[in-house]
Amino acid sequence: MLGLGKMGGNMAARLLRHKIEVVGFDFNKEFVNNLVEKEGLIAATSVQDAVNKLEGQKIVWMMLPAGEITEKQIKELIPMLNKGDIIVDGGNSNYKHSQRRGAMLVEHGIGFMDSGTSGGVWGLDNGYCLMVGATKDVADAVTPILKALAPAAHRGWAHVGPVGSGHFTKMLHNGIEYGMMQALAEGLDLLKGKEEFNLDLAQITELWRHGSVVRSWLLDLTAESLKADQTLDGVAPYVADSGEGRWTVVEAVEQGVAAPVLTLALQMRFASQEDDGYSYKLLSMMRNAFGGHAVKSSK
Amino acid sequence: MLGLGKMGGNMAARLLRHKIEVVGFDFNKEFVNNLVEKEGLIAATSVQDAVNKLEGQKIVWMMLPAGEITEKQIKELIPMLNKGDIIVDGGNSNYKHSQRRGAMLVEHGIGFMDSGTSGGVWGLDNGYCLMVGATKDVADAVTPILKALAPAAHRGWAHVGPVGSGHFTKMLHNGIEYGMMQALAEGLDLLKGKEEFNLDLAQITELWRHGSVVRSWLLDLTAESLKADQTLDGVAPYVADSGEGRWTVVEAVEQGVAAPVLTLALQMRFASQEDDGYSYKLLSMMRNAFGGHAVKSSK
Repeated sequence: MLGLGKMGGNMAARLLRHKIEVVGFDFNKEFVNNLVEKEGLIAATSVQDAVNKLEGQKIVWMMLPAGEITEKQIKELIPMLNKGDIIVDGGNSNYKHSQRRGAMLVEHGIGFMDSGTSGGVWGLDNGYCLMVGATKDVADAVTPILKALAPAAHRGWAHVGPVGSGHFTKMLHNGIEYGMMQALAEGLDLLKGKEEFNLDLAQITELWRHGSVVRSWLLDLTAESLKADQTLDGVAPYVADSGEGRWTVVEAVEQGVAAPVLTLALQMRFASQEDDGYSYKLLSMMRNAFGGHAVKSSK
Repeated sequence: MLGLGKMGGNMAARLLRHKIEVVGFDFNKEFVNNLVEKEGLIAATSVQDAVNKLEGQKIVWMMLPAGEITEKQIKELIPMLNKGDIIVDGGNSNYKHSQRRGAMLVEHGIGFMDSGTSGGVWGLDNGYCLMVGATKDVADAVTPILKALAPAAHRGWAHVGPVGSGHFTKMLHNGIEYGMMQALAEGLDLLKGKEEFNLDLAQITELWRHGSVVRSWLLDLTAESLKADQTLDGVAPYVADSGEGRWTVVEAVEQGVAAPVLTLALQMRFASQEDDGYSYKLLSMMRNAFGGHAVKSSK
């Protein structure tokens, strides 16, 4: 397991608890030592050392930031591995990169699997939802690991198709997640906005968890958070976004398929990230220009 | 119980199974007879007969179509009831109407409760999610009924606020439902649209049910349906909408609060209902006018 942060560290721990030996490496030695002490990880001092410590058909599972770091790691691994060994990218890579990397590794006789991995910090206890793309022989070789990481041996993981299709499926999973989150947030915002009813959002979200049409894991988490605090005074109105949300919207454009809700859910995050509000300033200026409407001055 | 259709009939059955006596009336005699035979309903031959058959403080629960039918029924009930009796509107009325009706009934000394009721055809077995608006004494009087209808005595129902707030909360519940459904539909549409991967939507939705961030009751139902058939050849690409989805969007306008996803989810249903596509024709005509782009002829 290369990368023992929030995701990789917990996944290594879950594998170890399922009696699967794991050799782990991370540049952060604290992460490594912690897993050695608590979970019985076999520590490696470098990527080369990790590979050396594996016997037989080697399976290298990477939980690294998508993009350049993943790209570099794969290229660095090629000369270290033998024909028939397997690299699994469990990060959030763009599926087109995974397709290209899979094709590149085939030339070296190395198998590749792209695993879309959902479950966040809850995965250690509940298991991870895994969508994997690979050839059949690669998928078969990694299956014991998938069964241990998933919520149960025959549940919550699937070999969905060829290389690339795992990250593609994860991309759309996250796109849907953006839309569902935005729908919940907008609806709760309007509930809160109706001041005459003075509604208790903690009570309502808890109530919806039982028997309603909108019951969902996102609602469970939201209800839990609102119970602790529903003023949200300490939270800035700023929402980050990551690759999959953006790639989903690009995919809709490339397919020429309407996906307005997934698109707007992303765009609203962009709006939340806007410091300057230049487009609002422009609109205010235009209203002033054609209608003499007052312009509100900035502070 | 006035109205013994899909919702009212199952709710009467659930109450009877919880050892609560129910007098029921519906213009459809088959509905009535069915509940008498199978569940032990006390049949009434008219609304007046139903009211006569109740003793002490009368609680009249209506499960009727929102709008004029509900309005007429409430007005018809007023002279039949005594001070301290209670009318519950469990249908999908606009919350502003419920506020007005509650105020009107107060003048006659009659209590009113608006109960937003979620759970659909699954409610009989699983229980209904109930969001109720009322004064405290009315809510207290109806509580034994709410406890029997809900998934459990202390779960899935709540007195959320004054008269009107129950239907208001249900309205936004449904607004959120529209957004979540649209997000799922758009994402699955893009999965299907990626022909090179030939993905199995039944497999993927089933897989997402376990450990993923998008797991939800809507996903459960979707996975179940896709298992039976994912071509959807027999389904017309037409989506109906009902009051709450529209009222949610109006509420956002009235509050002056951005809710683009809830709005677009509704607008896409309108687009699906469009037979003529006049706006698309106009766009095609404009493209032709300014750029000489070809106009595709209608069949």
